[in-house]
Order: sequence, then structure tokens, then C-alpha cells
Amino acid sequence: MTSAPFGSRLLDPLLSDPQTSALFTDRAALEAMLQFEVALARAEESCGVIPPGCARDIADAARTLDPDWNALGAGVQQAGHPVTALVKQLRAAAAPWGEYVHWGATSQDVIDSALVIRLREALAGLDARLEAVIARFSQHAAAHRGTVMAGRTRSRQAVPTTFGLKAAGWIAPLKRHRRRLAELRPRLLVLQFGGAAGTLAALGDRGLAVSEALAKELDLALPPMPWHSQRDSFGEAAAWLALVTASTGKMGRDLTLLAQDEIAEVHDGSAGGSSTMPQKSNPVLSEVLVAAATVNAGLSASMQQAALQEHERGGSGWTAEWLLLPQMTILAGTALRHAETIGGALDVRAERMRRNIDAAGGLLLAEAAAFALAAHMPLQQAQALVAQACREASAAGRSLIEVLRASSTASVDWDRLRDPANSLGAADAFIGRVLE
Amino acid sequence: MTSAPFGSRLLDPLLSDPQTSALFTDRAALEAMLQFEVALARAEESCGVIPPGCARDIADAARTLDPDWNALGAGVQQAGHPVTALVKQLRAAAAPWGEYVHWGATSQDVIDSALVIRLREALAGLDARLEAVIARFSQHAAAHRGTVMAGRTRSRQAVPTTFGLKAAGWIAPLKRHRRRLAELRPRLLVLQFGGAAGTLAALGDRGLAVSEALAKELDLALPPMPWHSQRDSFGEAAAWLALVTASTGKMGRDLTLLAQDEIAEVHDGSAGGSSTMPQKSNPVLSEVLVAAATVNAGLSASMQQAALQEHERGGSGWTAEWLLLPQMTILAGTALRHAETIGGALDVRAERMRRNIDAAGGLLLAEAAAFALAAHMPLQQAQALVAQACREASAAGRSLIEVLRASSTASVDWDRLRDPANSLGAADAFIGRVLE
Amino acid sequence: MTSAPFGSRLLDPLLSDPQTSALFTDRAALEAMLQFEVALARAEESCGVIPPGCARDIADAARTLDPDWNALGAGVQQAGHPVTALVKQLRAAAAPWGEYVHWGATSQDVIDSALVIRLREALAGLDARLEAVIARFSQHAAAHRGTVMAGRTRSRQAVPTTFGLKAAGWIAPLKRHRRRLAELRPRLLVLQFGGAAGTLAALGDRGLAVSEALAKELDLALPPMPWHSQRDSFGEAAAWLALVTASTGKMGRDLTLLAQDEIAEVHDGSAGGSSTMPQKSNPVLSEVLVAAATVNAGLSASMQQAALQEHERGGSGWTAEWLLLPQMTILAGTALRHAETIGGALDVRAERMRRNIDAAGGLLLAEAAAFALAAHMPLQQAQALVAQACREASAAGRSLIEVLRASSTASVDWDRLRDPANSLGAADAFIGRVLE
Amino acid sequence: MTSAPFGSRLLDPLLSDPQTSALFTDRAALEAMLQFEVALARAEESCGVIPPGCARDIADAARTLDPDWNALGAGVQQAGHPVTALVKQLRAAAAPWGEYVHWGATSQDVIDSALVIRLREALAGLDARLEAVIARFSQHAAAHRGTVMAGRTRSRQAVPTTFGLKAAGWIAPLKRHRRRLAELRPRLLVLQFGGAAGTLAALGDRGLAVSEALAKELDLALPPMPWHSQRDSFGEAAAWLALVTASTGKMGRDLTLLAQDEIAEVHDGSAGGSSTMPQKSNPVLSEVLVAAATVNAGLSASMQQAALQEHERGGSGWTAEWLLLPQMTILAGTALRHAETIGGALDVRAERMRRNIDAAGGLLLAEAAAFALAAHMPLQQAQALVAQACREASAAGRSLIEVLRASSTASVDWDRLRDPANSLGAADAFIGRVLE
Repeated sequence: MTSAPFGSRLLDPLLSDPQTSALFTDRAALEAMLQFEVALARAEESCGVIPPGCARDIADAARTLDPDWNALGAGVQQAGHPVTALVKQLRAAAAPWGEYVHWGATSQDVIDSALVIRLREALAGLDARLEAVIARFSQHAAAHRGTVMAGRTRSRQAVPTTFGLKAAGWIAPLKRHRRRLAELRPRLLVLQFGGAAGTLAALGDRGLAVSEALAKELDLALPPMPWHSQRDSFGEAAAWLALVTASTGKMGRDLTLLAQDEIAEVHDGSAGGSSTMPQKSNPVLSEVLVAAATVNAGLSASMQQAALQEHERGGSGWTAEWLLLPQMTILAGTALRHAETIGGALDVRAERMRRNIDAAGGLLLAEAAAFALAAHMPLQQAQALVAQACREASAAGRSLIEVLRASSTASVDWDRLRDPANSLGAADAFIGRVLE
Repeated sequence: MTSAPFGSRLLDPLLSDPQTSALFTDRAALEAMLQFEVALARAEESCGVIPPGCARDIADAARTLDPDWNALGAGVQQAGHPVTALVKQLRAAAAPWGEYVHWGATSQDVIDSALVIRLREALAGLDARLEAVIARFSQHAAAHRGTVMAGRTRSRQAVPTTFGLKAAGWIAPLKRHRRRLAELRPRLLVLQFGGAAGTLAALGDRGLAVSEALAKELDLALPPMPWHSQRDSFGEAAAWLALVTASTGKMGRDLTLLAQDEIAEVHDGSAGGSSTMPQKSNPVLSEVLVAAATVNAGLSASMQQAALQEHERGGSGWTAEWLLLPQMTILAGTALRHAETIGGALDVRAERMRRNIDAAGGLLLAEAAAFALAAHMPLQQAQALVAQACREASAAGRSLIEVLRASSTASVDWDRLRDPANSLGAADAFIGRVLE
Repeated sequence: MTSAPFGSRLLDPLLSDPQTSALFTDRAALEAMLQFEVALARAEESCGVIPPGCARDIADAARTLDPDWNALGAGVQQAGHPVTALVKQLRAAAAPWGEYVHWGATSQDVIDSALVIRLREALAGLDARLEAVIARFSQHAAAHRGTVMAGRTRSRQAVPTTFGLKAAGWIAPLKRHRRRLAELRPRLLVLQFGGAAGTLAALGDRGLAVSEALAKELDLALPPMPWHSQRDSFGEAAAWLALVTASTGKMGRDLTLLAQDEIAEVHDGSAGGSSTMPQKSNPVLSEVLVAAATVNAGLSASMQQAALQEHERGGSGWTAEWLLLPQMTILAGTALRHAETIGGALDVRAERMRRNIDAAGGLLLAEAAAFALAAHMPLQQAQALVAQACREASAAGRSLIEVLRASSTASVDWDRLRDPANSLGAADAFIGRVLE
Repeated sequence: MTSAPFGSRLLDPLLSDPQTSALFTDRAALEAMLQFEVALARAEESCGVIPPGCARDIADAARTLDPDWNALGAGVQQAGHPVTALVKQLRAAAAPWGEYVHWGATSQDVIDSALVIRLREALAGLDARLEAVIARFSQHAAAHRGTVMAGRTRSRQAVPTTFGLKAAGWIAPLKRHRRRLAELRPRLLVLQFGGAAGTLAALGDRGLAVSEALAKELDLALPPMPWHSQRDSFGEAAAWLALVTASTGKMGRDLTLLAQDEIAEVHDGSAGGSSTMPQKSNPVLSEVLVAAATVNAGLSASMQQAALQEHERGGSGWTAEWLLLPQMTILAGTALRHAETIGGALDVRAERMRRNIDAAGGLLLAEAAAFALAAHMPLQQAQALVAQACREASAAGRSLIEVLRASSTASVDWDRLRDPANSLGAADAFIGRVLE
């Protein structure tokens, strides 16, 4: 419910995200809870459940409430949540209407709805960030449609590709994440309101009417029934957050690999100095992307474990969520914040990309060579011939194509073949499909 | 207890699901891979990439292939996957067209597409099971709209509810899971086809045309680009499987709790005898639901970790998926299989539900009593009065309502109040909303 | 490295542990890092690496350093860790000896050693708490050696046991955890000191001598080599923390189950009031024990994932640890804090334990009855007879023993048998073995 | 890709370990359970609990039992475990002594003890493998004490190190794992024997005596009390397995990185051919090491979750363990098997290591240069000077030392400095400490 594990002057600049974490401060939690109580009073007044006029006074009391934090903390220790203590303070402030505060609601109605309200804002922020990251890397994808580099599979140079296609491959999942978010929102952004055990019994026959009015007040959808112990939509949100950080984590891992001195094809723009090595420029932002993925993956498992909440409302799983979901959300914010920064600072070294291909003897043209030779002999024979040439080229430190040219009598346009830009297949078309 | 979660004569009847696991046998894996190779030949023939007539022969060879399993196993150890060895065998069988087998494809095209094809069928099976489980528990929800029982929060009796609403609460997430599945399908059920490193370079300028034809052959959608190292849709599927088993796990946990001798309100119908205690009837199927949730949660975390696959195609994360996704799918199948069985065998003991309320002195009417008294005094005063009566009733082993009736002069219809069926709020309306 | 996810006025009273979290504040992190730098200066001065006299001035500078937190935060964003910025500030403060601050060390030497120093204190605190929890529950185990209650297996009453044995069963793993901690300490409480990439190259041939002196200064053991990318001992500590919270979580789960109204045999002493239900007394502390277990399990998985740190020093896994290990440690502190509280507040209701056995018809005497009858007939025949009697007793709401007495002619001492206190087997002996 | 992580003709050669998996077949599980029942009969006969002479017949029946697997499978579905059905078959075979089979035991006694027996053998196998892996890499560490290579931190060349020290860094955790295993064995290799709910009630006052005799028969230690719902030692074993695979995973990650074409300093010896690229030689065994780490990390989290087993014996957590612990053990076996293979096949390319240092302009000598210059100026000034020279060297593609030599008038032995072998600090001493 609070911003954990953030709030460190030391580490927040690297590991947190101010925009997201602001939604998970004690203060923000309190305000969202008060927002619920005020909306409830308004809804209940409009439905004739509580006396006319009291909602305005409750709203005033909420707006001007000077919370006694110590009492709230003590209340949490007593009740396992802050609502009882908060309601007590709000009731005192809303006198003589105090008794109509929190009328017929239960603590979980307040806490879950207050979390949903803040997740709505947090997810809107993440979505905007996703859009920004996509925009930045779309520019790279477009700008580097023709920037040839080694495509690498299982850590080895495979065949030529372009940096444009690599950037497109980073974007494509992010676009799907935006779609996923749009799909999960109607399930997640719903009112929690069920009273003591999900029947709204204290409201008699006006439970549904108050629910509808309250949902409207909070601009949330009305679920078919209270979901106190149905945590699937929080679980889905957690899974989405882990998917997002996994995708930025993959980007971070690629960038970390590309930043190696021996490859040095792209640098993420991190300052990344060392405390003892003058030459260092470490890809620290990219590494944070990987770290965020690692942490969020584990937290998402705990969220699914925490979902087995007992009967009408469980205690332990619910409490566990408070330790999990806020930090997952913030870590996704951190990851997207850094991804956006990287997108703006990316240093793409086209010349080095080409040089790395040459330095490896152009072995990544082996497939292209085999298919070219296959016009003159069976493919397997061509592959065997090329494999032999690869061994010779490696041993002698020569270019594969030159070795083949020297050893083969087949009529192949070796000059054309030797330029990896001529073996890009559908790379450009794929970029176009991702960007459209 | 045995080495494989699945494929054990000893444990499969409890822990596996024949319908789902049949899609993940060696044989099924092989057939799906062959299906890909045949479809590829057809697509390439239709696009003029390989000679006319050879696709039919390749299809015949695939249909009649008698695989040399030892050679396949040895090939896996060499290459890290079975495709190279399989292609070799298929090429031999498809002579003289052998070289046109697997033309321009890479191993991951085969393995991923073959997995997608089987996931399509597996997920269809899970969806049908979800529908069946929903149907069975919908009957319970409808049949028990008026079956009063204790609503329980944080392990304690809270206020009255109905078994119908409890059943509705089990159904509601499952309905959302079906919707989620419908949404994720277009992202998941897509062709994997990118050639060596995702550019389809070996197909020159016909890569996209072949892709379209191949997708059509396999009845899969065509993604914007190959997704060799974009694992978000597998990650989403894994998350969905974990969400499903979390929801059935919650049902299993509730049923386990309800089966306790001291509660004994519902039994899941498991035989559950003991090797030494004649009286035992353990809720073993419900326990498997919880076990499946526990395992799938952890596996889903590893799936998100495995998603950080390097560059154009990574090796370690991809390999890890093979250890994760099939067992997650089967465990979801197992959970839904048992949930369906339970839905058909459920023993709901309405009389005992009522008795448990009485045995606890009807304390769960405390909220109702407080709100009834609140017509005559401020709510907090009423709550304090009721709390005091609760303590007296508990100490004396008396009924709360009787204690209140004896101590209060307020004009409350205690006879009406004492029947928990009169304090069900919107329970019936909520059931209706879930079932519609 | 900081206290995450704690530092909330709202939730800390429930979810954090002041004693442990105090070791993970920004300030505590800073002080431990300064402690390292001062010890390093002393060690290097003593080995003649840096000029005589400067260590004292560096120590003075560290003691009086007024850190510029903004600059530290900015430094973290630049370098991925706070050491470069901190060293800069300390160097300025230690003029003219500034250059001898951090001589030959690398950032990870500082951060890891500073973490080890604080883990040493944190683990000592946890060990003391373990001892206290063991002491409290040992008293319960001793006091309730004869307090008969239903032993429950797979959620059903099984055979009689005692609350003393249940308490002993909670203690036994905690005793093993203390032993495990003693064993892992020598591996964990070791100096980290390797310089830039683990060779201490900047110290020439005096690396080992300085290491020995530095380890002595910090009262840490000297590992065989720097362990910058060997994270097994942190992984082991994380596993230990998860084991501890799993054991307290099991205790919490039992207590939550025992607190159910229908069982009501033990209450954990939590206040646990409700915001709307006057009768409620929720076992909130026990629920926190379960929540801590859920969270720590997932975090421990991420710690093992984070251990795959590249080459001589990895960035992403190391960063991830900062988000994981402190919160795991604090959560273990929270769990043990609450366990100790519960141990002091436990309300054991022996009378209700006995009543629950009777209310279930004494069915848990079935095994005892079968074995008693087995003196007169084969065991399976006896079991069948008892099983039949169980069904009759259940159906008629009668006592199993009375049904058997009425139906059997075997000469069994039914009066003796009917008292579950006569069927406790080795319970007392087992308690003795655990307590000794 | 197939349904079972293990037991696949297709994938086992890559992903399983015959030696370990042989202990977790249905047959091995059955035999271990029979071994328990026979030992129990012997122990009980020796204590006078069951008639003299019957143990031998029970042993004969067990040895010659032809299990009806279908009935066992059906029994598992009924009871949630195979023991009831197995005991029934064994009793029939042991007539007329059938009733004395399984006397006073419960299913979990059989299953847990049978698992412990097999874990004992599995862990002995893993320990022997650890020893073998340590031996192989110790040879590399010794052989390459002087093989200079780039030490890499945060993905960048940092300072020189040796391949010997890198190999020592892989060994050091494995040596600690052997020590950890030795420490956990006494906790893990203990008898499980408690009867129905952990009191051994059916044995009256002879429970402890039988326990001692049984433990002796099975060569297991006797724990202070039955541990049916104390799963800490299984949790510790699981954590150990995850620690082992994390360490081999780190080795695998390093090897994968070192196998990149642009680095190409070490190859793991995998065949690793491609289905379409003739030049490829993928480090597939190293990738499996990483995959095993990823999977075991997630499984270990579920093991800790599964540990919260209810009361005297829980059902769901216990069942979950069967899905978790065997595959974790086998994956550790697989990882160590491959690590041993790699240790025997490792191709260390010393010449390329040196070349990679030169190709990066010897920038990794920056720290050494700064400290050399620090003899003539303050360290920070030296570092700034070197940092400037690094930029110049990078821009001009020149050697750092040459740039410095040209620009500095300080009297530094640049020839000595330019050889990275002169900047290895304590590398050799550290290797010695690890190997001793």
C-alpha cells in the first residue's frame, strides 16, 4: 500500500520512479482512502441511506483532516489495516455526522478501492511511458532500416540483420503490452464494495443502488459482485507488470551485451564511471532494466500465491499484496523511465557493426553462401562445402567469401554476396509492419 | 516423488491430465514439428521457392516416417534441440526432394510453431473445461441462492452469506479467465517463421509471401515480425495458466477449509481414505488444486525470467521454457479436471451450515444488530453495546440476539433479526449478476 | 541496501521491524561504507601502502562527514552505486590525504563489505529473536504436555495429540534454523576486497597483506579469494531467511486455523478488531506471519536468479540484490517479532480442545479402537468394523466408542479407550526430545 | 516441449541425468516404499510389536511383489497417495501375515522416508559430481595461473586477470556447496515415522523403541520428533539444489559470454551445430546450465511456499513437493553432468585472450597506469590524466600506454606496464588459496 522498497535518498535516483512512487506514499494512500469515504457518503446520501447534508460535511472533514499518524500506525498494528483508526479520526472530525462515515462498508472496500484508484493513475503513467519509449525506439528503427549488423543467435554471429530490425523487435512487445493494458483495465478498474463479507447486508435492499452511485462517484466500473477474495485482476495486473519489465529487461540485456568492449556497437548513454578505473563507462541503466525484470518476476509469483485468499475475505494474502504490488508498479515505472532515457541517449555505432562482421571473417554469410551455391548443387552439399570453407577461413583468419571464391567454380556473384546488406531478406518489410 | 511431474503410472491419475498431456508427448511434439515442415514445403512450393511436386512427397515422407528416436536424442544432445536430427531423417525419407525440406527455416521456427499449434489445442481444451466448471458451479450457485451459511473473513465468522454467493464467487474469476483467453489468443496463436536470425534471408524477397502462405497452411495469424526473442506471448500464456490455477487453488483452499470436521459444511466428494485411520475422508482433490497453484506460481516466475533472451535468438531462456510451459499447461488441465469432478460430486450440507452459525451463538449477526440498533442510537454506541453483548454471549455460551433482546429496550424486531436469512443484503442480486 | 519496502508510518508498525530496519536506512548504509573506508585506510597504513598518519585523519573526516545527500543520489544515478560520490566527498573532507581514501578498492568492495557488516548485526538480532521465540514456545510445550487436542491431518481430525507436541513441532525447525545460521556465518561474514576486478592489482604484491589487516579491522574472516561474482553465500542467507519465515508462516497458518470460530482452540492474542463487525477478533499477527512467508519465498527465487553475475563483477544481479536482501531480512525480523509477541500472548483453551473432540463424536479414536480390536481379530477386519461404526456414529450423532461398545462383544476396555488422553503414544517423549 | 521435464526420449539426453533420474522412476519409488515396509516389519518384530517370524515373510513378499500398477494408480486417485493401495497389495502377498504390514505407520511415514532414502543416494551422486567438477576445473585453474585475460566488470574490460583465477572463481562456490551438503545431511537424512498424526499412538509405549530400531534398519538418524509438517529440511535441500544450479548457471553464463565470436576466448566444447547455418558452433551445454538455474530458482520458491503445511500433516503442500523436489534434484544432476563434460572439453584460447586486450587498446591498464603515475602526482590527477588518455586512445585507435608514454614526462616504466602480466596483483595467491 505504500511505496516500498523505495524512499531512499541514496538509491531512489537509480531504482525508483518519482512519478509512480508518488502514488504510493503514506499520504497518497490516505488521500485515496479519504476519497473513498467521501464518495461513499455522497452515494449513500443520494440513495437516502444517510441523512441529507452530511456528505458535504464529511467531505469537508476529509479535506481538512490533520491525521494523527501515530494513532494510525498503532491502529494498523491492532487491526491489521489502517481503516479502523482512520475512520475513527474522520468520524471525530465530521461530528455530528461521524456515525455516517464508512456506513456499511468494510476496511477492504476502502483499501482495495483506494488502491485501484491509484493503480488507475499509475497505469496511465506507465502507458504514456510505453508510448514514449515506443516513439523513441521507432525513430531508431526507422533511422536504422539500413544499418547492417550481425544478427546473433545463441551468442554467436548468425546472419546479417539491421539495427532497425533489432529496435523493431524491442518495440513489438511493448505495443502488445499497451493492448494488453487496454484489455485488462475494464477488469481492474472496478469498484470494491461489499461490506463486511461481500453482501452489503448493512445496506439492506439498497446495496446495489449505493454501489452504482459509488462506482459513478469514483468513476470506476461496477463488477458483478464484490471481489474481496477474487484477486485475479490484481494478479493479472501483476503479471502485466512482470511482462513489461521482462520486455525492458530483454532490451537491457541486449544493450549490456552490445556495450561489451569487444562488440561496442551500441551504448545506452549511461554515465557509468568507476570508482577506480578511469576508462570505464558502464551501461548502468541497462543493467537496472535487467534487475527490475529479475525482481518483478519473483514478486509476480508471490502475487499468484497470495491469491488463494480464504472464504469471503482472507487476511494473509491480502496483506502480502501490500508488500508486492506497489513495488512491482514502481519498478515497472523505473524500467520505463530508464528505457525512455536510453531511447534518447542511444549511441549507435554503424561503422563498428560492420567492422565486427568483417573481423569475424564474414562467417555470418555462410547461410547466404550455401543458398547461393544451392543453385548449382544440392543444398546439403553446398552446406558441407561452406562449412569446410568456414573452418579454413577461421583457421587462416581469412574472409569466408574469399575462401569460397577461391575454392569454388560455381558461378556465384561473390561480390554481391560479400556485402551483408544484400542478405537482409525481409528485414525492411518486418520493420515496416512493426512501425505501422 | 517420481522424476517427472507427468508420465508416471503412479502419480498421473492424481496429478496429470490425459487430455492435455497427450499434446506434450514425444510423439505429439514430433508430429507437430513434421506438420510444420510439411506446411512449409507446401507454402514454399506454392510461392515457387521449391520445385513443383515436392511438397506432396515431403508430406508422404512425414506421414510415414519411422523416427529413429535414439538418433533424435543424440541429435538433441549435439544441437541443443531435435530439429537438425529430425530434418536429417525427413530429408532421407523424402529423397530425392530431401534438400527442399526445412528450406530457409531455422530450428526455432519449427519448435515454436509446433508448440503454438499444440497450445492452441490445449487451450481450447482448457477453455472447454472452464466452461464445464462454470456450468457445474453455476448450478450450485443457482440451487443455493437461499442456502444460508456463515460468511467468513480473516478466518472468523463475519456476517451471513449464502452458499450460492460463495459458488458465484468461485465462478466470477473463471468467467474472466475465458475472456482473458479470448484476448490473448490472437497474440499467442501466431506463426513463428524467421529463418536463421529473423530476416528470412534465405528466401530472398519471397520471405513475406512464404510467411503468409505458411501461416494460412497452419491456420495461424501472421505476426508483424518473427518473435524468436520476443517471449511476451508465451509469458502471457504462462501468466494466464497461473491465474487459472490460482483461482481453482482458491476454490480448493475454501473446500479444504469447509471440509474440516469442525465445519463440515461442504465436502468435495474425494474418496480420500487413510492407510491407518478408518474414519478419514480427506479432500484430496481440493488439495491438488492448491498444490497446482503453488507449483504454477513458481513456474510462472521462471517463465518471466526466461524471457530475457539474447539478441535475435537466445539459447538458455528458450531451453528453460521447454521445462516450464508444458507442465504449467498440464497442471492447469489437472486443476480444471478435478474442479469439474468436484463440481459434480459436491456435497453441500445446508443443515450443518445453519448449525455452525447457531453453535457460534449467532455472533455473526452482530453487524446486523448494530445497524438495527442504530435506528435508535448513534452507530458507534450501538456497536459498543453489541460488542459488549458479544462478550457476554460468548462467555455464557448464549445466543447474541437473546442477550441483546434481554438487555436492550430499543424497539427492534429481534425475531426477524435472529434469522440470518433476513440479513443477506444484495447476495441474491450479486448471484444474478454473476450468472447472467 | 536500504530498508525497503519499509519506512511507512502507516504500515511499519505491522509489517516492519524497527530493530532490523534500522540497519538498512540510508544513514546506516552510509556509516557502514565509511566504516569500511576507515578500516581500509588503517589496514593500508599498517602495511605501508599509504603514508603514516593519514588513516587517523581519514577516520576523523569520516566521523564528521556531513554528507551531501543530493550529490550522493546524483552519483548513484551516474555510477549505478553511491561509492564514487561518497569517496569524492570523503576525499574532500580528508584533505590533504584525500587521495589515500579508497586506495586500490572498488565500489563493490565497499558495498558488499558494508552489507556483510550490517547482516552480521541483523542476523545476531534474528538469532536472539529465534532464541526468545523458542523459549516462549518451549514454555507452552512444557506446560501443555498433557493438554489433549485433536491431531489433524489433511484438514481432518486424525488421532489425539497434545498442544505441547504441537508447540514442540513449531520449535523444532527454529532450533535447526539456529544451527543453520551458525553454520552459514563463517561463509557469509567474510571480507569483500578485490579491487577493480578481484586481483587487488593496484596494491601490487601487498594485496593479501592488506586483505588480512582489513579483515582483522572489520572483524570479518578472509575468504580464499574475492567473491564479487560468487553470490552463493548471499543466496544461502536469503534461503535461510526464507526458511525462517516459512517456519513462522507454518506457525501462523496453524494459529489462523485454530482461531476459526468453529475450532477456537487457540488465539494468538492479536487485537484484530473490525471496522464494522463488533464481534471480531482477527488473528492479524498470525496472518502477517503467513504474508511474510509468501513474500520471502518469491524474493528468495529472485536472489537465486540474481546470482548469475557475469565474469568478474556483474551489474544487474548485484543491483537486484539491493532490492531483495534487505527486505527479506526485515521481513524475517518482523515475523520473529510477531512470533515472540504471540508466544507471550497465546490463549490456549484446553476445555474447547476437548469439546471439539467430543463434538466430532470422538471419531479420532478410530485408529485406537481398531488397534484395540486387533487383539481379537485381524487388523483389517477391525478397521472395517470401526469404519462401519464411524459411519453409524456420524449418521446418528453419537460417540464412536459408544457405538462400538454397543456393537462389539470383544473384550476391550472401552472406558479407558474413550479418553483420548490414553492414546497419546510417544507424544510426551517427543516433547522431551525437542525440549532437551 | 514435452510433457515431462524428464522421461522424454527426445529431451532427456540434453535435459536429464540418467544417474539421478533413475532414483525417481515409478519403480524406484515403489522399491523404496517397500524397503520402508520391510524395515518396519523387522523393527517391529524385534521390539515384539508384531509376531516373530513375520518380518521375513513380509520381506519375501516385498521382494517378489509383482505390482498391479493400474490398481496403484487408481489408489492414488482415491487416497491422494499410493500407500493405501500398495499396502493392500503387499498384505495380500504377505498372507497370512498381511495385517502386520504397515503396522501403526501412516502413508507419509512411508513416502517421506522413501524419499529421504533416495535423496541420500541422489545427493551422494551430486556430491561425487561436484568433486569431479572441482577436480577438472582445478586443473584448469592450475594450468592457467599465468594465462592473462581481460577481467571484465559490468560487461566492460576492467583490469587484467588470469583464466586460472576465473576458473578458481567457479570452483570456490562449489567447494562451499560440498561443505553445505555435509552440514545439511544430518538434518535431512532422518527417519520419518510418526504414525497417523505424529504420536505413534498405535504403538502404545513402544513407539520410540520401534523408531530407533527402524532408523537403524534404514541407516537414518532419528529426529527429535516426527516432522510430517516440518518441511524445513526439504526446504533446505531445495535451497541447496538451487544454490548449486545457480553456481553452475553462473559458470554457464560466463562460458556463453566467452563463446561470443567477438570474444571467442573459451569454448565449452559443445557440438552445437545449426539446422541452417554451416558456421555455427553454439555453446548449448553452457546454455543448459543457465536454463537449469532459471528453473530451479522458481521451483525453490514453490518449495518454500509449500512448507506451510497445516497442523500435524497437510495435504496440498506435501503433494506439491512431489512435483518440485525430484525435478530440482535431477536438474542439479543435469547441470553437474554437463559441467563435468565441459570441464573435460574446455578449449581455452590464450592467444585470443591477449589479442582481445590489445584490440581494446589496452584500456584495461588504465588503473595500473593511474597508480603508476600516482607515484609522481596525486592519484586523482593521475586518474584524470589517464582518463583523458583513454579518450584519445579510443578515438585514435591507439594503445593507451603509447598515448601515455607520448604525453607524460613522469618516469614510469612503460614497457613493464604495457604487459598486462605485470598487473595481476594477488591473482596467483588467490588461486593458490582456492586450490589448497
